[in-house]
Amino acid sequence: MAQFDHLATYSDCKRPGITRLVFTKRDVEARAYIKDLMRQAGLSVREDVMGNTFGRWEGSDSKAGTVMTGSHSDTVVLGGPYDGALGSLGAIAAIHALRKLGFKPSKSIEAVMFTTEEASRFSIPCLGSQGMTGFLEPEVLDTFKDENGTSFVEAANAAGFSAGTSKEYAEKALLKNPSDIAAFVELHIEQGPALEAEGKDIGIVEAIMAPSLVRIKFTGKGGHGGGMPMSYRNDPSLAASELALRIEEAALATGAAETVATVGLWDQQPNIYNAVPRSVLLDIDIRDSDKARRDGVIKATLDAAEEIAQKRKCGHTKELKFEYPVATSDKKVLEAIQVAADLVGAKSKRMISRAYHDAAFMAQIAPTAMIFVPSKDGLSHHPNEHTAPEDLARGVQVLALTLAQLSGPSSAMPTDKGEL
Amino acid sequence: MAQFDHLATYSDCKRPGITRLVFTKRDVEARAYIKDLMRQAGLSVREDVMGNTFGRWEGSDSKAGTVMTGSHSDTVVLGGPYDGALGSLGAIAAIHALRKLGFKPSKSIEAVMFTTEEASRFSIPCLGSQGMTGFLEPEVLDTFKDENGTSFVEAANAAGFSAGTSKEYAEKALLKNPSDIAAFVELHIEQGPALEAEGKDIGIVEAIMAPSLVRIKFTGKGGHGGGMPMSYRNDPSLAASELALRIEEAALATGAAETVATVGLWDQQPNIYNAVPRSVLLDIDIRDSDKARRDGVIKATLDAAEEIAQKRKCGHTKELKFEYPVATSDKKVLEAIQVAADLVGAKSKRMISRAYHDAAFMAQIAPTAMIFVPSKDGLSHHPNEHTAPEDLARGVQVLALTLAQLSGPSSAMPTDKGEL
Repeated sequence: MAQFDHLATYSDCKRPGITRLVFTKRDVEARAYIKDLMRQAGLSVREDVMGNTFGRWEGSDSKAGTVMTGSHSDTVVLGGPYDGALGSLGAIAAIHALRKLGFKPSKSIEAVMFTTEEASRFSIPCLGSQGMTGFLEPEVLDTFKDENGTSFVEAANAAGFSAGTSKEYAEKALLKNPSDIAAFVELHIEQGPALEAEGKDIGIVEAIMAPSLVRIKFTGKGGHGGGMPMSYRNDPSLAASELALRIEEAALATGAAETVATVGLWDQQPNIYNAVPRSVLLDIDIRDSDKARRDGVIKATLDAAEEIAQKRKCGHTKELKFEYPVATSDKKVLEAIQVAADLVGAKSKRMISRAYHDAAFMAQIAPTAMIFVPSKDGLSHHPNEHTAPEDLARGVQVLALTLAQLSGPSSAMPTDKGEL
Repeated sequence: MAQFDHLATYSDCKRPGITRLVFTKRDVEARAYIKDLMRQAGLSVREDVMGNTFGRWEGSDSKAGTVMTGSHSDTVVLGGPYDGALGSLGAIAAIHALRKLGFKPSKSIEAVMFTTEEASRFSIPCLGSQGMTGFLEPEVLDTFKDENGTSFVEAANAAGFSAGTSKEYAEKALLKNPSDIAAFVELHIEQGPALEAEGKDIGIVEAIMAPSLVRIKFTGKGGHGGGMPMSYRNDPSLAASELALRIEEAALATGAAETVATVGLWDQQPNIYNAVPRSVLLDIDIRDSDKARRDGVIKATLDAAEEIAQKRKCGHTKELKFEYPVATSDKKVLEAIQVAADLVGAKSKRMISRAYHDAAFMAQIAPTAMIFVPSKDGLSHHPNEHTAPEDLARGVQVLALTLAQLSGPSSAMPTDKGEL
């Protein structure tokens, strides 16, 4: 708990909120703190060109591969203390505990802290894990700027990373030997209400929902809020209001609890009470555990935007900014988590992850699964994000026991398979 | 035209937009320029404590009172070149023309430039004219801050004005002898499409629509856009979307072209694509030339907010930030404008002002009317705001001839009535 409290001090807003955007002064300080913790746990620390940070514990069999675990340390604006932090600090704590217990792994074990899982600075999630797994297109690093117009490359260089171009960043971040990763496990808060509602301690994540980002902009001629009669208007804010309600309808219409759609960003211009809006830009997050169902809601959204723009005589543009792959967990990793949860007497539940994670990209190149602990009221990305200390501790215990199974003890257990 | 172009250079954004908020560096520079123009026109310049700026031409009869004309020089963010500027520069140009023609007024004539007619910095319109006419409540100056948290008093002090408290500002700005104002005339662009649509040159304004500002805030528990199932949400952005459409319905339902309602400001938090919104604040501008009809739409808005918040289980707050008086023009001032328009061969039209103006406050203490010239496409508060040079010139001519009639020539005309 002291570590969470200390990490929370690296923030650009008042508590209880935490704002730590990638490559800001506070983020660089937090990175130094996490590297210190890795060293204190006896791990050998290295960073890649994008700032993905690794703490390695060498196994007895250098050819058996590496079991990796970790998460991210950046936050959204006004985020909470555990999203990302649990999996980053928990990875180090779990490994530290295994070392103190005298455990000797056959496979190597690495704690990882991924660079900017949140889209809070550059509007695109999981840049670090995309880079490691070969999903990062260099143009993405150039296209998306932060609110001051700074690109990822400029921010990374300012923070002391030194690849020259976005292409170099993407190329150099790529894991040289992805088949060395024998397994990847990410510990995370649920960010949803299911575990709490059902009285469960541990979620064992079988799949990660596939997100997409649709950007719609409506435009109109604007005018003075008093001067422009209603019948002359083509108000883009009213078009956006109609669309928001149509998107809600489309998400509810699938009948599946996994279908979610959110008009998260609403940027209205000029945004003063007495001016008829001239433009409204919407960023819409649409996800599902089923790709076809998700793509149906995307289509309904794009079609409704077209129809509403025509009806209200508004201009409009439509863009599918990204659509990420569904991730399916590995059976053996899931079984190791199940055994670990049962060992500590946790009430566990197989479930899907509704939020996206670095694990979704790691799952494309290595056997992967996630461990969830409950989120109070399902809240995250929120200053009131909360998980009870005993739930946090239980998550770290389950992670430690999972790592022990996956890495394979070098004594008292057969090391050629690395499994219990 | 050179004066409009020069005034437009005092701006904090790129052309064609103009951004000149009160008491910024650019506004202070623009004020110096306008005082220079007043001096070049032979006027004696004074400022009051709020920065209302007067250029006086002494009449032959010091007891006959003062005919005042003017407007404001501040703009909205990304405004255009003529809103306010026409009435400020036009007042000086009209007086200058009368002086050059050798006209000798009986009553004194004053050009005035009012401080911050726009609500673009402090969210409240007409602060200067409210101060002069006794409508300004000191708390208003303390309550409304700009986006950096600066109050009017702090900004005024930084710009070189030196009353100590908001109370002192309001008290010292009050006109000592309001009955001295024999008439007030404001020249302005229409900010609506009527003159252009009907092929008219000059609008003679019989009344000014009464605005009001309703502020509604919806709140919800937020959550992660992927993690929070649709059925658990109480999304304030969807409540706001429903309300926006209900407000449009209520405004259209009166059947009167004078009823307008605008959801001009939409402030969504945390405003990132993958977070369910936690709050949406709406500023809603509701106006009408008929007070009862306006108040009906206000009530419909407040009732709908209540009903929608209950249905969607959102929190909400409601506030009527202000409701201003309807202004009715003075018959004799209207007749003087009519005579002036006929003299220059202008096609004129009696109309109402849909936008609010400093003239609405001046009308509460002095015989008042306004002169409108056409606005291309009805646009204002917009970089593309445009009025043809010949329409601008015609407005200034009509203003000059109106001032001549109202001030009463000291020779060749009886001076005791000051009317043609």
